[in-house]
Amino acid sequence: MPSGLISPSLLRRFADIVGGANALTRADDQAPYLREWRDRYIGKTPVVLRPGTTDEVSRIVALANAHAIGVVPQGGNTGLVGGQIPSQTGDQIVLSLARMKKVRDVDSAGGTMIVEAGVTLLEAQNAAEGVGRLFPLSLASEGSAMIGGVLATNAGGTGVLAYGNARHLALGLEAVLADGRIWNGLRRLKKDNTGYDLRDLLVGSEGTLGVITAAALKLFPIPAERETAIVAVESPAAALKLFRLAEAEAGPALTGFEIWAHRAQEFALRYMKGMRDPFVDAYPWYVLIELSHVSPRSPAVRELESLLTVAHAQDLVQDAAIARSLQQGQDFWRLRDSFSEAQKGAGGSIKHDISVPIAQIPVFLERAATIVERVSPGARPVPFGHFGDGNLHYNISQPEGGDREAFLALWEPMSEAIFELVSDLGGSISAEHGIGQMKREALRLHKSPVELDMMRAIKTALDPKGILNPGKLL
Amino acid sequence: MPSGLISPSLLRRFADIVGGANALTRADDQAPYLREWRDRYIGKTPVVLRPGTTDEVSRIVALANAHAIGVVPQGGNTGLVGGQIPSQTGDQIVLSLARMKKVRDVDSAGGTMIVEAGVTLLEAQNAAEGVGRLFPLSLASEGSAMIGGVLATNAGGTGVLAYGNARHLALGLEAVLADGRIWNGLRRLKKDNTGYDLRDLLVGSEGTLGVITAAALKLFPIPAERETAIVAVESPAAALKLFRLAEAEAGPALTGFEIWAHRAQEFALRYMKGMRDPFVDAYPWYVLIELSHVSPRSPAVRELESLLTVAHAQDLVQDAAIARSLQQGQDFWRLRDSFSEAQKGAGGSIKHDISVPIAQIPVFLERAATIVERVSPGARPVPFGHFGDGNLHYNISQPEGGDREAFLALWEPMSEAIFELVSDLGGSISAEHGIGQMKREALRLHKSPVELDMMRAIKTALDPKGILNPGKLL
Repeated sequence: MPSGLISPSLLRRFADIVGGANALTRADDQAPYLREWRDRYIGKTPVVLRPGTTDEVSRIVALANAHAIGVVPQGGNTGLVGGQIPSQTGDQIVLSLARMKKVRDVDSAGGTMIVEAGVTLLEAQNAAEGVGRLFPLSLASEGSAMIGGVLATNAGGTGVLAYGNARHLALGLEAVLADGRIWNGLRRLKKDNTGYDLRDLLVGSEGTLGVITAAALKLFPIPAERETAIVAVESPAAALKLFRLAEAEAGPALTGFEIWAHRAQEFALRYMKGMRDPFVDAYPWYVLIELSHVSPRSPAVRELESLLTVAHAQDLVQDAAIARSLQQGQDFWRLRDSFSEAQKGAGGSIKHDISVPIAQIPVFLERAATIVERVSPGARPVPFGHFGDGNLHYNISQPEGGDREAFLALWEPMSEAIFELVSDLGGSISAEHGIGQMKREALRLHKSPVELDMMRAIKTALDPKGILNPGKLL
Repeated sequence: MPSGLISPSLLRRFADIVGGANALTRADDQAPYLREWRDRYIGKTPVVLRPGTTDEVSRIVALANAHAIGVVPQGGNTGLVGGQIPSQTGDQIVLSLARMKKVRDVDSAGGTMIVEAGVTLLEAQNAAEGVGRLFPLSLASEGSAMIGGVLATNAGGTGVLAYGNARHLALGLEAVLADGRIWNGLRRLKKDNTGYDLRDLLVGSEGTLGVITAAALKLFPIPAERETAIVAVESPAAALKLFRLAEAEAGPALTGFEIWAHRAQEFALRYMKGMRDPFVDAYPWYVLIELSHVSPRSPAVRELESLLTVAHAQDLVQDAAIARSLQQGQDFWRLRDSFSEAQKGAGGSIKHDISVPIAQIPVFLERAATIVERVSPGARPVPFGHFGDGNLHYNISQPEGGDREAFLALWEPMSEAIFELVSDLGGSISAEHGIGQMKREALRLHKSPVELDMMRAIKTALDPKGILNPGKLL
């Protein structure tokens, strides 16, 4: 691991690459790059560099490599595990890709576009929409999150069920390697069997194997119709049956299948403004189903209704609300998207982003509830998530009226017990947020030594001096 | 690269691992493992080992690594680039996975199954069907091709448009590494962001980074309806417009979009038995369109008809034949699947498995025809392929009545010129067949030095002695 502070003359050489205005050394200028939005990770750096071109990134990384200086790539600074924040030692450079904002090319007929790392998710979506196409990756933080970071962390979101996660939307990459060389892998091919899959190796590597500077992305037809329903179900087991039924009836038209517990909805209604309960009565679990159709001739509403009729006949539905307007459909999604924020109203919370094989979700939820009660009696699980992906945000709010700090002090034993259950069920301790700083120790406990060795061997091969995002992931 | 022949005592130690009956040393016993079906690659080996378990594979590879003996993993021996055949030097062991045939688990509710490397594609399809599920990977050689090889080469086939290639169907892998250790990566998760994507690194690495011994595979609902049409179009440019239209109208229901030139069909009708011309007149190009629907309530035929009505109004259709029965639909596919075989009737052929960005297919076909005429005047291009994936089998038959050997002697200059065009258009010189022995030199010419260096660094990191499939790919 690199160490040693940066000399003033070396600092000047870094600054010269990007120009003084883009080499931030004053504390106020640096501040937005050194803390993430929940203030959980705060770092120090001699300089935040803001290159404008791939060539500048290349020169920065080459210089850093020559002097064994750690480089922390950063996009929109929306990561949830501290991967984008430098350490406290003050010897790591922050490399912000925020100025690399070119949409290099949008090919509507070919169904691809090439954008630079600093283009936000929203800007990428808009660029696609501008040529009548859909870029389907969608996240709560899409106004700030940038393509480079989204790919470096293999981000997920609500479109994964139909379109896959970030990995599946990248056809090719351009990246700067640890020695500063530029890898031009900006292919736009659906099929290419000419050697190792370097693209997928870099995607999700959290900036530890290379700095992604641009990507060739897949575009899709814009759905002409989207129909949404919230269905009240008795249990996660009923939700599983409903999911299988929806999949069998709607196939690839099934573009959303989210689940939440009653408590998530209760908190949203209590602590958030402008939320409406879709039902008069309360039910233990809710599922949001979305069907999408590219052609306006497809009878989407009838399909959703007929799906629910079949589900009702199988006793899977306690109640159902079908959106009768675009607005109502958006309201359903707004309710779903509010749960994380709403939880703040209920005091301290311990959060998990886990996945298990879909068929194991009911078992997981049952056993996890027992764990929570054991570790913190009275604590309130608020599970919700992307059921169709096997991905749950298993969040837990502190006991009502209890002490916030005392509850948060239980984060580690609580997480460890939840992660053990996840491992027992063949699941993942980080489904979509990554490892970063936050889950490094947990990774060591839950990955096999063989797999950790393979990862270390690859890291050493591609970044022998360990300059790329040191202290993250591995 | 390992060298040195194997001593009799070492040979005995290898044989002891699998038992004498599964250590083939006699020439007749070895023969089926040493030549591929077109007799293009023929190798030598001291022994063909047929382990029955992952543990036996592990012990074989560990012993080979200790003595720096090359190991050539082999599945169904259906590869098209010689990747599964040992060299002529006689110092490489063949490791056949053919006895590893266990279907370890089929989880219908979870939509996954775990099968061992020696399970054939057809057996895997049948295991899925047995629980009412679809395993969608389908190839001409599916009766022999085995899961291990299919994943090691990231095989394609006709299901790629809707379901992706082999890579996209694997959720997890079990593999034996170069030092003999077993990596258990048999996860069944749709989302897992806990470190480097080792699965996708091994998939498509052609046995050079590890020996795949088992895989967790994705299963899908079985389509209730499949509708097929052959459409005569004027040009590849019209086919491109038709593809975009089909995609916009049918979305993910579009599960097949193949193209072929008139000559492919002409050869099929002339040289194959039981083929029928779907049309009375001849047309320059044909497209096969398939729509699939999971639910029998979806009005598939009407959708295909209405799609063709729209296409007709846009002047994209010269003629169209919609399959009126399951049998007729199968006949359409049988016609499409016959082209490679049919070409044998027309004398020698030079073949390419290339891909370009879809929007570039018309340009590619036009320029490639000029190249063919320049390199071998009178030679007859027989292009066909997976249009929707940008993947063409750009095959060329010898001039009518010309000399077969003289034509085949032009393979290298012909391929080099075609590959140069492919590179110019941002394409791939091997879309689905891989590199193996056949395209190693071409790879060196057409990959960037940076990318080759990255690949070599990873190879050295994971297989420092270079024992895994030496002389292949890199």
